[in-house]
Amino acid sequence: MSQSNASIFATAARIGLLSAVLSLACLQVAVADDEDVITYRQLIMKQLDSESAALGMIVSGQIPPDSLALQAKATANSARSALKAFEPKVLGGESKPEVWSKWADFSKRMEVFAKNTAEMAKVSETGNVAKVTELMIDALPCKECHDLYRTKKK
Amino acid sequence: MSQSNASIFATAARIGLLSAVLSLACLQVAVADDEDVITYRQLIMKQLDSESAALGMIVSGQIPPDSLALQAKATANSARSALKAFEPKVLGGESKPEVWSKWADFSKRMEVFAKNTAEMAKVSETGNVAKVTELMIDALPCKECHDLYRTKKK
Repeated sequence: MSQSNASIFATAARIGLLSAVLSLACLQVAVADDEDVITYRQLIMKQLDSESAALGMIVSGQIPPDSLALQAKATANSARSALKAFEPKVLGGESKPEVWSKWADFSKRMEVFAKNTAEMAKVSETGNVAKVTELMIDALPCKECHDLYRTKKK
Repeated sequence: MSQSNASIFATAARIGLLSAVLSLACLQVAVADDEDVITYRQLIMKQLDSESAALGMIVSGQIPPDSLALQAKATANSARSALKAFEPKVLGGESKPEVWSKWADFSKRMEVFAKNTAEMAKVSETGNVAKVTELMIDALPCKECHDLYRTKKK
């Protein structure tokens, strides 16, 4: 395929994708279906997993701290998205039913998580790796919450 | 294990983790080793993958747009981190050697990617899903860049 054909093809593909996305947006109702809700919250948790692992590599000194603030902010953003993602009461995925039967406790933990990561993100702007490391311990209580609210992986 | 024992255990575990992380931070030199560089950039790309997929679910109407701005910003942040993550010339992972032999082209594409996603993130604050959708097509040229610079998955 020549360069210009390839370019026309790429443009056509983009227009096709845009049309498809816009059609979907028009056809869908505002309420997400159950499978989408589960897929979406799993994406948010995956994103948190990568973000906190990358942040861990920075604070442990494996990677120079150029992106300290970007990664800390990413984690804080996702913590905020995570609470939203669990609001629809849709059982399934790796979530235990206790997420919703003990919603007061679960949502409080998620609020604290969002608040502490936001605090950590704020401090990260100063470039103080040691302080971010210290805050990170409390800001990322992943295991505690997973032990209570996530089914064990097979 | 009683509640208070569990709590003491959790605190001890945290202190242990903090010490381990701080020791690592002190022992490590500022330059990352090759394996760490590869792991880190793979984490950033994974994070982009989840973030853009979650954003796609929002713009396609599968998920209500409560987190539109958070997800758009997350994608923009990671695009910025991604360019940084590829700066060290460390061949390996799924990156083709062309990333570094054609660095001028690669880095220009990554700059455009970071710039366009930043623009999209800015617009997302208005809550205009249609406009974000439109910008997203140009802001996320994942396939074009992967076709050129990523080895095919086996």
